Amino acid sequence: MKYSIGIDFGTSSGRVLIIDVQTGAIIGMSVLQYKSGTMEKSLAGKPLPPDFALQDADDYIEVIEKGIPEAIENAGINAEDIVGLGVDFTSSTVVITDENLVPLSRFAQHKANPHAYVKLWKHHGAIEEANLMNEIGQQEESWLCHYGDNVSSEWLVPKALELKNKVPELLNEAAYLIEAGDWVVSTLIGENVRSNCAKGFKSFWNEADGFSKEFLAEIDEELPDIIEQKLDGRLSKIGEQAGTLSDEWSSKLGLPTQLPVATAIIDAHSALLGIGAIQKNQFTMVMGTSTCHLMLNEEQKKVSGISGSVKDAIIPDLFAYEAGQSAVGDLFGYIVSNTPQQYVVEAQAQNISVFDYLGQKAAQKNAGESGLVALDWHNGNRSPLSNSELSGMLIGQTLHTPYEDVYRAHLEATAFGTKMIMNAYAEAGMTIDEVFACGGLPQKNALLMQIYADVLNKPIHISASDYASGIGAAILGGVAGDCHPNIESAVQSMKQPLLKTIQPIPENVAIYEKLFGIYEEMHRYFGLEKPGIMKKLKDLAQ
Amino acid sequence: MKYSIGIDFGTSSGRVLIIDVQTGAIIGMSVLQYKSGTMEKSLAGKPLPPDFALQDADDYIEVIEKGIPEAIENAGINAEDIVGLGVDFTSSTVVITDENLVPLSRFAQHKANPHAYVKLWKHHGAIEEANLMNEIGQQEESWLCHYGDNVSSEWLVPKALELKNKVPELLNEAAYLIEAGDWVVSTLIGENVRSNCAKGFKSFWNEADGFSKEFLAEIDEELPDIIEQKLDGRLSKIGEQAGTLSDEWSSKLGLPTQLPVATAIIDAHSALLGIGAIQKNQFTMVMGTSTCHLMLNEEQKKVSGISGSVKDAIIPDLFAYEAGQSAVGDLFGYIVSNTPQQYVVEAQAQNISVFDYLGQKAAQKNAGESGLVALDWHNGNRSPLSNSELSGMLIGQTLHTPYEDVYRAHLEATAFGTKMIMNAYAEAGMTIDEVFACGGLPQKNALLMQIYADVLNKPIHISASDYASGIGAAILGGVAGDCHPNIESAVQSMKQPLLKTIQPIPENVAIYEKLFGIYEEMHRYFGLEKPGIMKKLKDLAQ
Repeated sequence: MKYSIGIDFGTSSGRVLIIDVQTGAIIGMSVLQYKSGTMEKSLAGKPLPPDFALQDADDYIEVIEKGIPEAIENAGINAEDIVGLGVDFTSSTVVITDENLVPLSRFAQHKANPHAYVKLWKHHGAIEEANLMNEIGQQEESWLCHYGDNVSSEWLVPKALELKNKVPELLNEAAYLIEAGDWVVSTLIGENVRSNCAKGFKSFWNEADGFSKEFLAEIDEELPDIIEQKLDGRLSKIGEQAGTLSDEWSSKLGLPTQLPVATAIIDAHSALLGIGAIQKNQFTMVMGTSTCHLMLNEEQKKVSGISGSVKDAIIPDLFAYEAGQSAVGDLFGYIVSNTPQQYVVEAQAQNISVFDYLGQKAAQKNAGESGLVALDWHNGNRSPLSNSELSGMLIGQTLHTPYEDVYRAHLEATAFGTKMIMNAYAEAGMTIDEVFACGGLPQKNALLMQIYADVLNKPIHISASDYASGIGAAILGGVAGDCHPNIESAVQSMKQPLLKTIQPIPENVAIYEKLFGIYEEMHRYFGLEKPGIMKKLKDLAQ
Repeated sequence: MKYSIGIDFGTSSGRVLIIDVQTGAIIGMSVLQYKSGTMEKSLAGKPLPPDFALQDADDYIEVIEKGIPEAIENAGINAEDIVGLGVDFTSSTVVITDENLVPLSRFAQHKANPHAYVKLWKHHGAIEEANLMNEIGQQEESWLCHYGDNVSSEWLVPKALELKNKVPELLNEAAYLIEAGDWVVSTLIGENVRSNCAKGFKSFWNEADGFSKEFLAEIDEELPDIIEQKLDGRLSKIGEQAGTLSDEWSSKLGLPTQLPVATAIIDAHSALLGIGAIQKNQFTMVMGTSTCHLMLNEEQKKVSGISGSVKDAIIPDLFAYEAGQSAVGDLFGYIVSNTPQQYVVEAQAQNISVFDYLGQKAAQKNAGESGLVALDWHNGNRSPLSNSELSGMLIGQTLHTPYEDVYRAHLEATAFGTKMIMNAYAEAGMTIDEVFACGGLPQKNALLMQIYADVLNKPIHISASDYASGIGAAILGGVAGDCHPNIESAVQSMKQPLLKTIQPIPENVAIYEKLFGIYEEMHRYFGLEKPGIMKKLKDLAQ
């Protein structure tokens, strides 16, 4: 028996999985919350600006140092039988380091400087920089079109520009800016390597042309050099071995010497491997606080509002496409946290969670019965509109609208939002035959998934695994360890079983077609014809 | 010292006031809840259809029989010094009676028949009948234009047609359909009299032309006869004595024999007398569960979406105009009843009501800070759109929108709705110099009234009296009792003092102008350009 380690670095915790490389069975596991969590309000007793979301890179080290031995112990296996290690990470989560890849936050003189810490993917301190890039990018059609004609403040380049604008001396002192996934891998192997996956999706790079220097120069004349220098490192592609575990780490962790370590992959992308949705014509929703919608195709097509399309980023020779909805689980969390008091009391009386209580009540309603339609843009619209100035909307309320109807309308709104994205893929000529769902939400929320099946009018395959991304990382570890000739065959062996397939209910499909017509009309009006309305409201609120 | 009795029949209770006819001072009072309340769910153990709202006319008798002696006792006056009595009532609240004005619900064989009971103003069982009238009315422009080109299911004629369609034999058996205000007055004086106020506003009648027979015949060929017969009774105009108290009632109540009784007036209209807003160019908001917006003018102008314009209905020789917002206090009640649990807990900890707690939190916010705009159409839009198929809307929500912002956005929405109505009056050439507010809401909700002043950009005179309608009724009682030569001079003496005048805050005015621009755009889109969107949602919900 041989095993691969998959380490899945999520937003608030890291999870180490020990996986059987032949069957994909989960043999052992360890989960560690990041000790400092996400620093959004204050750092070292000083308040942080709004939109900040920082982490301490040493918390990732703790996941490795404690999590790997724990998981091995939990698995009850011999560490000698481990043949590879893979890492997936949120992105673009950026570590700022010296020339030895030591995070600047580790140095006493920078301990109180927010910019010396990891900028988590959801750090939005670079909104102005992203806005500037978008303005200039509008004239630069050729390059941005593969990123939905839009730069997100979550990506690496605006985050780099934020450093140059706000702390130029710190940026100057830094040798590298590095995706956290690459930082973990580079740390483990003792060499500075860069994955093509995050580099392609978050840093305006592709293998044929390198960085988009012309575009970068238009934004800031120093930017091309900054990006080239600070992102320097040996290219390591998905499916390749990035290197082998350094002696220091193998002795520290009790792992085999020279253990093969795979190139890091973005977490949502890794999930495709874990659930085995690697054919073109398969549409995968990675559903959590937000949703990623992933597809694969041999050609690079122009899909409106796509987050990115990058060759070889998941499967060699295929373009990986990513679209996104910026608030899904987060939106339901907001709605649930605003539940009226009488519902909370009733849930307590029944000894169930408010979330379950609302879900039960909403499930008793028929499609269309609420008379409500919502727009799910509480955190802007990533795809297909690429507009972070948009906001939420609800129509159809009466004096008798019960709160479960409001809750259900927001579940439906996210399904309609997904249908808009599916339509954008279809309009670009990408046929969708199968829909997969994985991530934290699908297993927890049966009503939600039935609504998705009804709205999308497709059977939805629900992954049985809560750990699709970590499995994907372990699959890449297995390939790096030469247990499989390529990713496809590793996926075939190691992918997780489906929990179930949810079929659309024809009478609901018919009603949701009508409701979707209204959603589309709202999307068109507030998103395309009059985006200024929501922007004006945002501006007034500031 | 001489006194007048004003009896104010509201939606859920009757209030008897004893008023000094020289000063308008309130000397005594008695309030009685209607014993059977409003029957909306069931009658005699049987469920009622949706939209039903019934009352028992005998509950009004109880207000008279118990309330008048109680109020006199409470006043500590000699009943001999009472010189007149006036009545105001909600409208169109319709009693169905035999030829002696005995309500049919009093007879054993009809006790279980919902249609034998009083149809309260907010009974909406005649929606189909109103829709039919509206369809036909569209071609009948001349007549309907003074009713905002719209028939409400709350009015008497659709309620009569509902009886013909659903219980023809009961309608046949009935001698009269009579406004509850007229029924009370007729009962007290022992003669069937009809006020020009409700007749003009709710029954498609005017003094010059009588009933609109041609229009009625187009709807149903029997309708002209039904209306003429069942609404028959001696015309008695506002400001006139309807008759004198019957001997039976004077002995029963211990009141002077032949006590003059004034013509009944609609409750909201009566409020204008009570607060003394009887000049043209004065705009009065009677604010409760819904809001009436009243104006007076010598000419009959065409105001879009007006509920009605009737000559002599409040002040002789002036046209009284009524517009309306269908959900105001009701809307706030809905919003407050959906308050999230943590707010309720906090309010309890502070030992204040949820309403006060929300108000305090909302008052700490600046205009525009919420980034929200709502449409206040949860119960349709009465004026200026005359469309009951419309519903609520909220835009601008983020994942961090706190509930006090939602609450405040709905306060603002009703202010914007009032501004739309004010603009409709202004567009018809009616200048507005002064704004008055009375009713239950203005005194209770200081934040609300500041928002109205800021949105309307006018000082708002708040009436100090909770009892403006009842005072108005007592004023008419005083005029009937010859204490004053006419209504104007009675109002001059007896009107209630103002509590205060709220001035607009210039910086808020500027922000609300911008927000109103967005409200107007939403009004135009959902109300005028695409009213089918909300209608479709309503239809799907059924």
